[in-house]
Amino acid sequence: MAGGRHGRLFLVPAPLDFGCEPQSPLQDVLPDATIRAAARLQHWVCENAKTTRAYLKRVDVVTPLAHPLQQMQLQELPREVHKKGDHLGEFDARGLLAPALDGHDVGLVSEAGMPAIADPGASVVRAAHQLGLEVVPLVGPISLMLVLAASGLNGQNFAFVGYLPQDPAARAARVRELERLALSTGQTQLFIETPYRNAAMLQTLLQALAPSTRVAIGSGLTLPQARVQCHAVRDWRESGVFADKHTPAVFAIGR
Amino acid sequence: MAGGRHGRLFLVPAPLDFGCEPQSPLQDVLPDATIRAAARLQHWVCENAKTTRAYLKRVDVVTPLAHPLQQMQLQELPREVHKKGDHLGEFDARGLLAPALDGHDVGLVSEAGMPAIADPGASVVRAAHQLGLEVVPLVGPISLMLVLAASGLNGQNFAFVGYLPQDPAARAARVRELERLALSTGQTQLFIETPYRNAAMLQTLLQALAPSTRVAIGSGLTLPQARVQCHAVRDWRESGVFADKHTPAVFAIGR
Repeated sequence: MAGGRHGRLFLVPAPLDFGCEPQSPLQDVLPDATIRAAARLQHWVCENAKTTRAYLKRVDVVTPLAHPLQQMQLQELPREVHKKGDHLGEFDARGLLAPALDGHDVGLVSEAGMPAIADPGASVVRAAHQLGLEVVPLVGPISLMLVLAASGLNGQNFAFVGYLPQDPAARAARVRELERLALSTGQTQLFIETPYRNAAMLQTLLQALAPSTRVAIGSGLTLPQARVQCHAVRDWRESGVFADKHTPAVFAIGR
Repeated sequence: MAGGRHGRLFLVPAPLDFGCEPQSPLQDVLPDATIRAAARLQHWVCENAKTTRAYLKRVDVVTPLAHPLQQMQLQELPREVHKKGDHLGEFDARGLLAPALDGHDVGLVSEAGMPAIADPGASVVRAAHQLGLEVVPLVGPISLMLVLAASGLNGQNFAFVGYLPQDPAARAARVRELERLALSTGQTQLFIETPYRNAAMLQTLLQALAPSTRVAIGSGLTLPQARVQCHAVRDWRESGVFADKHTPAVFAIGR
C-alpha cells in the first residue's frame, strides 16, 4: 500500500517535556531522522495548533524548517476526540488527509510522546490506510514504554488500559480486577492518571492490592526529575510514598 | 530510591537493524542523549557480547567511547533466559549488578530495540530495584509501538502477548481467543512471530478471524523496507498477502 503519487502520513513523536521548564534540547530525546522529517513537513494534523507551533520552533533550532510557520497548514483534531480519558474517540478523519491526496506529506503530532498511543490520532491513521496512504512512524519517546522497561515488571506480556474510573468504589474494583489479571496471567497492567490525582491513585492501590503485588510508578521520564519506582505493596506501605502532583504518571501492577 | 554512591542501571535501546545490511546511521534512530550515555559506560549486561561490541563500534563512530572495548566488562544474560518465546525467564540477577554496587554505572542492552520489552532483561531491572539502584530508561526505537501507532488500531487500550503457540490447532484457538478479547473490550492485541513463520501466521489469521476484524502487520520498522499494513480480514483475503520471510514481524488484531 505504498503511497504512489500520494503523500505519506508521518507519525511525529514530540518530547515529553510539554509544559515543563527548562526543556531539554530536542536532539537529546528525538533522533536526527525524526527531527529532519518534522522540519520538512508543511501539512500537519495536531492535537493543538499552538503547542505544535512551539514544537516546530524547537525543531527549527536544530534543523531549519523547509516552510515558514506562517505558510504551514495546521489542522486540529476535533475537540471531542482528544479529551483525556476518551479511549476510542473514533471519527472519519479522511477529510483531514486531503493534502496527502494532493501529493503532500502530512505529519500527525500530539502534545507529548507518540501520536495514537495513549493519545488521540488513531482515526487519522485508520483513514490513511483507508485511502491507501503509506504510514511512516518515526522514533521518539513513549512514556508508557520507558516506565514499563524501568519497572522490571514483565515486559513480554503487558497491557495498557488507559484511565481508571474516577468514582472511588468503581476505581478500587477496577484496580482489583487488574490485579487478578496480572497475578493470574503474568500480564503487567499499565494505566495513567492526571497529575493532581496521582496521590489518590497511589492510595487506592496501596489499600486495594495484596501485600506481595508489585506496583510501579514512573513520572518525568526523559526529564531531570525522571523517576521510576517499583516495589511490593507491603514495601510501598512502609517506605515514604512518592506522588508527584504536577507530572503525569504511569502506573503499573504486576507479580 | 536514587542510587546515592551506587552506580545506576541504564536501559540502552539498540537499533532495529540487527543482522540487516545496510545499517542506518545510529543517530537516525537514537537520540544524542542515548548515544552519549552508551559511549560513557564501561560495564554492560547484554543478550550477546558479540553483537554488543558491534553496537558499541557504531556508537564510537558518533561519540568516541570513554573506555576502549578491550577494557569493557560485558556480562551476558544466562542463555536459558533469553531464548525467544520465553515469556518470563525470571532469575536472580543481582550478581550481574555487582559493578553498580562498586559505584559504576551499568548498561543493559539487547540485540535490537528496548531491553526488557518483548526481550529479556526484566530480571536485571528487578534486581536493580531490589538493590536500591536508580534505573534510567533511555529513548530509542520500539518496534511494537511503531507498528501499533502505524496500524490505526486502538492505541488507548492495547496488550502485547508475546509469541503464540506453534501447534496449528492451539495457535488457531489462541488467535480466536485474542479476537474475542479485541472485539469485546476494544483492546488491540499485539503479538510477534519469528520471520520464517510470518506467512503461516498470516494464513492462520485469515482463516481463523471474522471478515470484519482488522489485522495489522508491520516489519522492517526504521529500515528502508519498513512496512505497516492494516486491513479488515475480508480485504486481506482479496488483496495480495504480504509476508516477509526474513524480517521479524509484529502482528495486531483489533476492531
